[in-house]
Amino acid sequence: MSQKTRVAVIGLGERGKQLLEVLLRMEDVQVTALCDVYGDRIEHAAHMVEEAGGDTPAQSTDYHEVLNREQVDAVVISTAWQCHVRIAVESMRRGIFTAMEVGGTYDLAECFDLVRTHEETGTPLFFLENCCYGRRELMCLNMARAGEFGEIVHCDGAYRHDLRHEIAFGTENRHYRLPHYIHHNCENYPTHDLGPIAKILGINRGNRMLRLVSVASKARGMAQYIRDQKPDDAQLLATGFRQGDIVTTLITCENGETISLTLDTTLPRVYSRSFTVRGTKGMYQEDGDYIFLEKDHREDMAEIDLNPSALWKNADHYGAEFDSDLWRSPSAGMLASGHGGMDYLILRAMLSAARGESYPAIDVYDAAAWMCITALSEQSVMAGGAPVEIPDFTHGAYKNRKEISTGKYALDK
Amino acid sequence: MSQKTRVAVIGLGERGKQLLEVLLRMEDVQVTALCDVYGDRIEHAAHMVEEAGGDTPAQSTDYHEVLNREQVDAVVISTAWQCHVRIAVESMRRGIFTAMEVGGTYDLAECFDLVRTHEETGTPLFFLENCCYGRRELMCLNMARAGEFGEIVHCDGAYRHDLRHEIAFGTENRHYRLPHYIHHNCENYPTHDLGPIAKILGINRGNRMLRLVSVASKARGMAQYIRDQKPDDAQLLATGFRQGDIVTTLITCENGETISLTLDTTLPRVYSRSFTVRGTKGMYQEDGDYIFLEKDHREDMAEIDLNPSALWKNADHYGAEFDSDLWRSPSAGMLASGHGGMDYLILRAMLSAARGESYPAIDVYDAAAWMCITALSEQSVMAGGAPVEIPDFTHGAYKNRKEISTGKYALDK
Repeated sequence: MSQKTRVAVIGLGERGKQLLEVLLRMEDVQVTALCDVYGDRIEHAAHMVEEAGGDTPAQSTDYHEVLNREQVDAVVISTAWQCHVRIAVESMRRGIFTAMEVGGTYDLAECFDLVRTHEETGTPLFFLENCCYGRRELMCLNMARAGEFGEIVHCDGAYRHDLRHEIAFGTENRHYRLPHYIHHNCENYPTHDLGPIAKILGINRGNRMLRLVSVASKARGMAQYIRDQKPDDAQLLATGFRQGDIVTTLITCENGETISLTLDTTLPRVYSRSFTVRGTKGMYQEDGDYIFLEKDHREDMAEIDLNPSALWKNADHYGAEFDSDLWRSPSAGMLASGHGGMDYLILRAMLSAARGESYPAIDVYDAAAWMCITALSEQSVMAGGAPVEIPDFTHGAYKNRKEISTGKYALDK
Repeated sequence: MSQKTRVAVIGLGERGKQLLEVLLRMEDVQVTALCDVYGDRIEHAAHMVEEAGGDTPAQSTDYHEVLNREQVDAVVISTAWQCHVRIAVESMRRGIFTAMEVGGTYDLAECFDLVRTHEETGTPLFFLENCCYGRRELMCLNMARAGEFGEIVHCDGAYRHDLRHEIAFGTENRHYRLPHYIHHNCENYPTHDLGPIAKILGINRGNRMLRLVSVASKARGMAQYIRDQKPDDAQLLATGFRQGDIVTTLITCENGETISLTLDTTLPRVYSRSFTVRGTKGMYQEDGDYIFLEKDHREDMAEIDLNPSALWKNADHYGAEFDSDLWRSPSAGMLASGHGGMDYLILRAMLSAARGESYPAIDVYDAAAWMCITALSEQSVMAGGAPVEIPDFTHGAYKNRKEISTGKYALDK
């Protein structure tokens, strides 16, 4: 396809700028519209477009004005979490292919809104969960499909990312996380870990999540950080934080698998998504970056038990056989793009769907199912960990889904 | 004290034999009585005692006969799980210092029986949770007490031990796990992971566990193993297993901390207790064996984020300052004893209490609080993960406990 895909980017904070940078490097993309509530952000982004040799894009602080089907083939929504769905709904109503950044939602109704709007308008929605295109996540997807892990019974995931600076300096940085951490207490960012797991377990494709329980620790990390790093900020020192430092969510699936998710963003630590796949014949674990397969390691068990760290970092060895084709000869451009290549891949997958070459690898039903965890987790935390049912947004169609992604960027069976 | 402590060992399977071996190497211990339901085990153990230069001990297949206060100062109970409490109660009634091996209980009433019997008789009970004396567990206890982790908000632990062979060959090996895995579904072995965590969080010493939720994955590991390893065992092939492969339990404490426990015994993997301590100023994690402290690592964060494995295995560096004295110059005998030295230490701690030199480092209230997790977890799993209240076995005394361990083997503040 020689014609360029015309893209609008709505939301030009840190994340929007990252995505814009990757898009501007793609020869088959033209960024035709920019929107943010802050004029200086638009100005900066427009400058980036021009620097990259593009025509001056349409610009507005009102997203309605850039949702113009005559000028835009696809919209990328990378605003603050709480505006994602509102804008996506409007974009779908206007018949514009809609790519929406990740984040959960505190409002279950938003998930139903997304699905209903998609079904009423027929406009595709693509959920930009970049971690679905992580190298290890794709390798494990391949291994799972090949039966290397046997029958999968459990997966772990987490979002372990020390965000205390970003939260504490949210006012200065115009970042949106601070009020969330003051007013809510739940698994507020489930999709980086849940997304790849849901693809492995076939959620919305023959399987679904039935219910969850969610339990939060006390909230102490932010207060300690503020005492240490902002000792003169009287207002923040006096602010109470509701968001527990560690929130653990256990999800039970219809096919009997369990998923454990952990939100871990306000204590000192190193980054990890703790991605773990457990089956009757083997496992992968991100903490240690190792594969353990019965067929490969059974004979060495005596040795391994004495020195388990001998396994650590062995996952690379499995790449030759099981790496995704997408990771086999990564271009320099891909690797230089955000998050080590994942941002490039998720945007290519999105563009493939925007051009009608494929069904969205991550669709509106995925978005609804993954995002709703936040709202349901908040219910469960408030009820002392009581089980909460997870809706089936496919109206029963998950048992025999026909819309599944195929081709180069496919994540479905 | 020059007099030897006279010990009876009840239960002479693998675990009993291990403990007997360690006891026989101690010059201040005399093994005066042996009991097991299998005569050949008694015979073998009696031979061990004689080989070690001891007098021929009293022997019986009926535990009532060896619970003789004239011949025994302390009894060690290392039978199958389901008999522990029955024997401990009888032993306490006869006024014999009672040391009981670990395991949970499916029957909540047993926990109350233990406590009531202790309170009625005044006989001490010592719970033999050897992992409380693990090197890293004791180091983290010291670091926690020294404030190195800041305020602790969450701990993880697990019993990750591939027991499929032991379970599947339970009939041949006269092992007791097989029927448990057929008939029950819960966190059936909580104390190896919960014990050290409970000591760090001051459970029963100013803090207590309020409630738990427990969720089990499907049970597929045993069936796969039996198909692979016992393809001719028609009876076992036709046996259904209720015990889920992965059972996750989330506990909320009165002081706001959360504890995550995982039972993970029927899938292929390497051993781990996944011991993790999380605080406002730092953490320890067993998977990777690393310490992350804000004060030590904050400045290197950019580097560490690029290569998190640079931290792995750094925990040894903290030993110089924070290792327990018990691990500073371990004798060859200690290290040669079971489980890398922990068995020696738990037995020395027990003997110190048996001689009246100290209050039990792990007492009847600890035993009840830790063991009850099994019964309560089963209730929660059956109720789809519903929260279940955890009793306070101290009748409110936990807020200001007076009976706390002190001295060389102390685990309390």
